[in-house]
Amino acid sequence: MVSPMQPPTDALAPPHLLNWSSVARTRWQRLIEQARALYHHPERQQTVGRGKSLGLLFFNPSLRTRTSLEVAAARLGAQVSTLQPGRGTWDMSWAQGAVMDGAAAEHVEDAIAVLGQYYDALGVRLFASGTDLEADRTDARMQQIAQASPVPIINLESAWYHPCQALADAATITDHFDGSPAGRRVVVTWAYHPKALPMAVPNSALLAAARLGCEVTVARPASHALHASVMEEARQSAAHHGATVRETSDLGAAMEGAEIVYAKSWGGLQRYTDPAREAAQREAHRDWIISSERMARTRNGQFMHCLPVRRNVVVEDAVLDGPASLHLRQAGYRLSAQQALLHELWTP
Amino acid sequence: MVSPMQPPTDALAPPHLLNWSSVARTRWQRLIEQARALYHHPERQQTVGRGKSLGLLFFNPSLRTRTSLEVAAARLGAQVSTLQPGRGTWDMSWAQGAVMDGAAAEHVEDAIAVLGQYYDALGVRLFASGTDLEADRTDARMQQIAQASPVPIINLESAWYHPCQALADAATITDHFDGSPAGRRVVVTWAYHPKALPMAVPNSALLAAARLGCEVTVARPASHALHASVMEEARQSAAHHGATVRETSDLGAAMEGAEIVYAKSWGGLQRYTDPAREAAQREAHRDWIISSERMARTRNGQFMHCLPVRRNVVVEDAVLDGPASLHLRQAGYRLSAQQALLHELWTP
Amino acid sequence: MVSPMQPPTDALAPPHLLNWSSVARTRWQRLIEQARALYHHPERQQTVGRGKSLGLLFFNPSLRTRTSLEVAAARLGAQVSTLQPGRGTWDMSWAQGAVMDGAAAEHVEDAIAVLGQYYDALGVRLFASGTDLEADRTDARMQQIAQASPVPIINLESAWYHPCQALADAATITDHFDGSPAGRRVVVTWAYHPKALPMAVPNSALLAAARLGCEVTVARPASHALHASVMEEARQSAAHHGATVRETSDLGAAMEGAEIVYAKSWGGLQRYTDPAREAAQREAHRDWIISSERMARTRNGQFMHCLPVRRNVVVEDAVLDGPASLHLRQAGYRLSAQQALLHELWTP
Repeated sequence: MVSPMQPPTDALAPPHLLNWSSVARTRWQRLIEQARALYHHPERQQTVGRGKSLGLLFFNPSLRTRTSLEVAAARLGAQVSTLQPGRGTWDMSWAQGAVMDGAAAEHVEDAIAVLGQYYDALGVRLFASGTDLEADRTDARMQQIAQASPVPIINLESAWYHPCQALADAATITDHFDGSPAGRRVVVTWAYHPKALPMAVPNSALLAAARLGCEVTVARPASHALHASVMEEARQSAAHHGATVRETSDLGAAMEGAEIVYAKSWGGLQRYTDPAREAAQREAHRDWIISSERMARTRNGQFMHCLPVRRNVVVEDAVLDGPASLHLRQAGYRLSAQQALLHELWTP
Repeated sequence: MVSPMQPPTDALAPPHLLNWSSVARTRWQRLIEQARALYHHPERQQTVGRGKSLGLLFFNPSLRTRTSLEVAAARLGAQVSTLQPGRGTWDMSWAQGAVMDGAAAEHVEDAIAVLGQYYDALGVRLFASGTDLEADRTDARMQQIAQASPVPIINLESAWYHPCQALADAATITDHFDGSPAGRRVVVTWAYHPKALPMAVPNSALLAAARLGCEVTVARPASHALHASVMEEARQSAAHHGATVRETSDLGAAMEGAEIVYAKSWGGLQRYTDPAREAAQREAHRDWIISSERMARTRNGQFMHCLPVRRNVVVEDAVLDGPASLHLRQAGYRLSAQQALLHELWTP
Repeated sequence: MVSPMQPPTDALAPPHLLNWSSVARTRWQRLIEQARALYHHPERQQTVGRGKSLGLLFFNPSLRTRTSLEVAAARLGAQVSTLQPGRGTWDMSWAQGAVMDGAAAEHVEDAIAVLGQYYDALGVRLFASGTDLEADRTDARMQQIAQASPVPIINLESAWYHPCQALADAATITDHFDGSPAGRRVVVTWAYHPKALPMAVPNSALLAAARLGCEVTVARPASHALHASVMEEARQSAAHHGATVRETSDLGAAMEGAEIVYAKSWGGLQRYTDPAREAAQREAHRDWIISSERMARTRNGQFMHCLPVRRNVVVEDAVLDGPASLHLRQAGYRLSAQQALLHELWTP
């Protein structure tokens, strides 16, 4: 259902990057290695973007994604336009066949068709609705954009996936384990947060760790399980390396022996049917915070988080500011990973 | 009254592009041909903008204009700053001699005088007031900006004109008729819209078609005639080619034999004196929509619209998504036309 | 207490530019001369910024600072990202050790640490709180940012200083006096304004004039004295040239013989303890406006203002539009001064 990054040999469709699900392992591996090379040698000169333009559409806020892409494109020689639809541009309609006599002045498919004539690729951020599970799970709006676009669409966090974050995470983990992440113990853990956040990051982090062949444990309250389809895809992916994906609601047990602790909050699936109940379930787990005490039970475990992070809510200051946190390296890898991605996209 | 694009030989005033009214036909023709050349050969390398900067001031929303200019300037090697006055900059005062003790922190003429020291040209979007006909008809605020600016001002849609759109439209029409648009039948038609929109686009589209020597019919309800001064200028311009400009309130008759159907909604001139009556008149013409049925009466007529367009209000999906619509080519020409314009402006 | 621009030999800290207080005179002088050279020869090609990126964070509005920096960086070949925190990015927390369960999604120190991995320098605008004198006087938030940043921070107007404006002002004054500003008579005068504005500009203008060795008079109502620490630093700086800094509440007397009249409004220090009283004191001095009549008492005095300026509130139209105003040259110097600054920063 979900459209993969098309193989470059498919001349009919642009090579969108909507998620990594159908991307060949060799290609995923090559991009990780290119990101690592750029991270360690940022002075490397690349000019493949000269004369090219990248359009960025942020339907939601961004700090890292926007800035790291602007710099990544500049390092390749490309020009970037950053747009926030509805702020200085027209409000957009998404409905098919609708009579557009409301607030929206332009249909999103028309906007994308036009921008696709100006830019050599379009990056799009479009968070989950949080109210329509089927639309979110199938990334319906990102799919709609991809189908309307004559040029490659790069998903900058959709309802269900955050592939740029996933590539940076995979490169960070690979780097930390000196190039051999397979078999290492990674915990992807839920943390408390005052809002019911989207699931794109935990989905993508879990899938990335599984694709690296790590032994993954997903720790979350029983009320906040990830979607069964994502768990199943992760299990199959890990199995390719003989690795496994476990699930537990015992955070303490999950931390024992962990080598990576990837923390993230997300709203439970119950939010789609009974938001008040989801909020109550979430509030009941305010103690799900990554503390120094919990980190002490790991095996030299390194903390990871995609940022922005709420200090002393998701993680204690002592962990984030201590020697066992990879969150800044992870953020730094956003730049290198996206530079590698654009470089591959634009290499003839 | 309205200041034309100054001839390049006038050393005292920058060569503003506020409208095409006084631009020599040879120059207009040359820009159309350059736009066409760039449209068909976007790979052509141009470097005349290197070391130059373009400032864009959007007092109103924009998608196409902003992005196509950012890319056009980049293709010439120039840097672009895009500003939205009042969003992250200071609110501006326009009054002459006023005591500025209200909300506005800066006079627009001071801002323009300063920006004119940083940029090699300034693009300005500034929509009609919709309440002061004389100010709108004379483009008073755009004139004020032009007079304050030490560098060329490019009108990115003012109260009365949209010359960048007009150039792209003219190139699109010329392209469609293989370089020979004179004598072809163009209908510029009003369409229903829930808001009383400005007249800059219909004014400019009508004048562009007339300047191409097309046989033009303006179709609109009797309540929504264009301003007599614009009609008169169009008639004189068409007469240069022996062509005519007609006016009708019978949309069906206008469609018979049309080769181009350029649709656009606008508020009637009554809006300036009796907005409620204008709204009532507009609502009475909800059936002014470009339908497949109406397009079937044309002579292989092609649909045009400047975008953004409200689907199934101004035009039916079937027309826009069918084979007889030029709206995307038209949008694509925004980039080429503006690149041609900047190229000419910056060529020593 | 206030961190100076670190000498380039200090390998541990980036060479932040937070203010000029501890910058060596030779360096200050060299930057002024480089700014003058660029102002008079803008065609000079500089390429030291190629491959570099500059991030700009505007927590407050900007017109001149933003645009002149975007163009200055482009002239050096560098890429610029301009961000407005909270507008399309995350709201930020500034507290140390706080439990971040409120509106702020990200801690400012985390954001700066991340951006410092992408950009080669960060410019930051962050106005005074107007409510916490100690925090404003020590530039506490700008200091916090500087300490969190792995790359140079350029102050684009903080609570207490506006060093980029000061450098442009110093170059403008030096230019006006043909390279010999020492001993010339400069009046820095308060003017009425409907709001209690910050003191960064008057502080920086006073210190710049003193550092040039000018004979400076600060004219202001008794209720609106500058802070004693700033006056004292200015006195010591002027004394280095055998010059003096005087203070008066008699604007008429101050104008006698003045060669530069640098006008600016600011809120009195009383605003920190009794805002209503400060407002009443300010309203009592609505006659503090720079008029033609007052300028006539100077010795060919030139008007200066950092802009934006409220016409006919701070200064009469006749002064601003007359031959004896340097405000546009001053604004033009923002570009050259910042280009000189970035050039020095990025020269290996």
